[in-house]
Amino acid sequence: MSQNQQITSTLEPVAGNGLLHRRLFLTGGAATLGAGALGLLTARHVTAAPPPEVPEWMKAPGAPLSGYGRRSRFEAGVQRYVATPAAGTTGAGASRTPLERLNGMITPNALHFERHHSGIPDIDPEQHRLLIHGLVERPLVFSMDALHRYPMVSRIQFLECSGNSRTIIAAAPQSGTCGQLHGLLSCSEWTGIPLGVLLEEAGVDPQGRWLLMEGADAAAMTRSVPLAKAMDDALLAIYQNGEALRPEQGYPVRLFLPGWEGNISVKWLRRIAVTREPTMTRDETSKYTDLLPDGRSLMFTFEMGVKSVITSPSPGLAMQGPGLYEISGLAWSGAGRIRRVEISADGGESWAEAALTEPVLSKALTRFRLPWRWDGGSAVIMSRAVDETGTVQPTREALIAEKGTRFAYHINGIEGWQVAANNEVTNVHV
Amino acid sequence: MSQNQQITSTLEPVAGNGLLHRRLFLTGGAATLGAGALGLLTARHVTAAPPPEVPEWMKAPGAPLSGYGRRSRFEAGVQRYVATPAAGTTGAGASRTPLERLNGMITPNALHFERHHSGIPDIDPEQHRLLIHGLVERPLVFSMDALHRYPMVSRIQFLECSGNSRTIIAAAPQSGTCGQLHGLLSCSEWTGIPLGVLLEEAGVDPQGRWLLMEGADAAAMTRSVPLAKAMDDALLAIYQNGEALRPEQGYPVRLFLPGWEGNISVKWLRRIAVTREPTMTRDETSKYTDLLPDGRSLMFTFEMGVKSVITSPSPGLAMQGPGLYEISGLAWSGAGRIRRVEISADGGESWAEAALTEPVLSKALTRFRLPWRWDGGSAVIMSRAVDETGTVQPTREALIAEKGTRFAYHINGIEGWQVAANNEVTNVHV
Repeated sequence: MSQNQQITSTLEPVAGNGLLHRRLFLTGGAATLGAGALGLLTARHVTAAPPPEVPEWMKAPGAPLSGYGRRSRFEAGVQRYVATPAAGTTGAGASRTPLERLNGMITPNALHFERHHSGIPDIDPEQHRLLIHGLVERPLVFSMDALHRYPMVSRIQFLECSGNSRTIIAAAPQSGTCGQLHGLLSCSEWTGIPLGVLLEEAGVDPQGRWLLMEGADAAAMTRSVPLAKAMDDALLAIYQNGEALRPEQGYPVRLFLPGWEGNISVKWLRRIAVTREPTMTRDETSKYTDLLPDGRSLMFTFEMGVKSVITSPSPGLAMQGPGLYEISGLAWSGAGRIRRVEISADGGESWAEAALTEPVLSKALTRFRLPWRWDGGSAVIMSRAVDETGTVQPTREALIAEKGTRFAYHINGIEGWQVAANNEVTNVHV
Repeated sequence: MSQNQQITSTLEPVAGNGLLHRRLFLTGGAATLGAGALGLLTARHVTAAPPPEVPEWMKAPGAPLSGYGRRSRFEAGVQRYVATPAAGTTGAGASRTPLERLNGMITPNALHFERHHSGIPDIDPEQHRLLIHGLVERPLVFSMDALHRYPMVSRIQFLECSGNSRTIIAAAPQSGTCGQLHGLLSCSEWTGIPLGVLLEEAGVDPQGRWLLMEGADAAAMTRSVPLAKAMDDALLAIYQNGEALRPEQGYPVRLFLPGWEGNISVKWLRRIAVTREPTMTRDETSKYTDLLPDGRSLMFTFEMGVKSVITSPSPGLAMQGPGLYEISGLAWSGAGRIRRVEISADGGESWAEAALTEPVLSKALTRFRLPWRWDGGSAVIMSRAVDETGTVQPTREALIAEKGTRFAYHINGIEGWQVAANNEVTNVHV
């Protein structure tokens, strides 16, 4: 079969309601297609008009160089969704990443989601100290200068708040954009010190099995972490996407536990106590614990499940009439790499495999894409991720059957977007 | 051999002047070492003092959530190095990434190096148009709305100005930080449309072999690009590290040619003309052409050579006396992946292999690291990269022997940092 034959065959639907093969745009950048083979694309907002006039901004020299750049004023509308704090609280709440306005796998630092329990402390790194004590041979206090001397590693990995996507279990679908519904989710390159190196310095007593982690915010956020995770892949993160952590991400140093619920990656880290048992802090008992239908509670459910969301098309991004679109989204799993993402455009009756953008990294966001020829009629699009352990993202129905409707964390069910003939996209339960 | 024995053996030098084995910090986060095995680390700015007092910033709620975050005021000193523009020019010049203040492989957008020929245009994306014309079946004009409908790909790749590291060929070593000397170098996740898809839409005439690329800045920056590169891995980049391109990086759309000299990735792209021959523009004849010793000129030397720099220790980052350090830096090649980086701490007499941080990606920056026990005496440290084609980063001497001292681009020779007993680090020719 020649390359051109292969491409022609990719224009045939591979699943219901117009899904095309993931190879369509991947074979040599479409360079091997005969001229006009796609056809449908030229019908877009493309004109064969005469050359555009010389715009104003070419008629005089532009702005000068700068020490620390800013984005275009025309992008000022791309903002985190800031939830109004509950009455009587100060500095507590969350802001969500506008996933539908971004592309790729990296979240820029200024748009990384936030979750604070008593606001963002303004920490002077010269004065900040990190204490390691408890069941150790040598209690130690580190300055930031000392930490900067230690060996570092870098990893691209996601962070997801365990309360993300809570609206999935609401009885009726909630309106909102992809970011408003699922934006307690971001991905960065984290650089820092393997926690095991510092614990080794202190000398952990054989009876030590857990670590109490305390943040230097006004809430003194505290969580218990199993020693095994600390020795596995835990980082004391100091850099995010190349530069120093942002204040809302824990400047000057935070714990980062890859693949685990965001809350336990304690920010503004000031204290690590080695303990025999978990400390049962306020932040792991009154919150971040899941109430089951039978009245029991699930505690220490650290790992985030396999999950995916379609970022485009999605609510707030209007369709532009029938034609060829790219369905694009994000998949991730706390258990490791994403193995496969499938997409349905007919509400789950048939599925097609999406292309995964390399590199597909463990515990990182993975961008997936699939071409879709929308016929202009009503369609329900949805995605389903499978991770390297073979675990499949559950349906909403299966999730509720297992855990009821009173739980509030680790919600990874499949949701759908309804694409309507009037070009609008809305959230639907599927 | 047990794991502990392996680690003990990594504490033995693997090359002259204190270089230790790259496995030292990579075996399970040092978790398998017996308590105190490193020893040397505890001598640092670490104290076994009583717990630090509760700092001021824990005594009252902190700052609220925000739509678009900012970095800490304590990091305000981390800035691009802005070169003073030549007299009589407006908006022309370069700023350099402060490589020695960053870590990991990603450069944050606000610190990506800049090179402008007539400043940064303030482009309204609603009004911006991209024209494809010349030897095509159908001249086309694209709005940004139209471009956003096309399929996209994402790749993490470096951009290096072909004039980077020019001081290497100066007769005497120039003083400056790593960023001041080598900072026309950055790395981002670029997301955009494979250029081949749009050329396919226009239908390239079989006689078309080159593309003229024109930017919408006041200099109307123009370069000629071989069609083969456009069909290989060229992107029309729209997103950088997740968000819309920054104005100084070509907002709303730029050409991105992986592995090639930065200047040819034309920013603010407004026009692509398909031609038979290169257009021989001002920007590829009066500049970006290399004068050889015999008076001939090398033109269209697109690909950037294999290269590496040590970012730490480096000038401006004072040493803190004898002890264990991490030597860390960046390696890259326009020809593909980095295969190996070697480090010398004795001015090139002996070499040890550094650890490469995964993922090692084609045409991306690769972070390398190696532990070093500095004895406090004078030492010259240097790095040497080898790419997947087997090409070895040349010495300064070999580079000058081949190309003389009147060339100004594609300077990838090895330079050294002199670490002195007084804790200062300076640039030296090696």
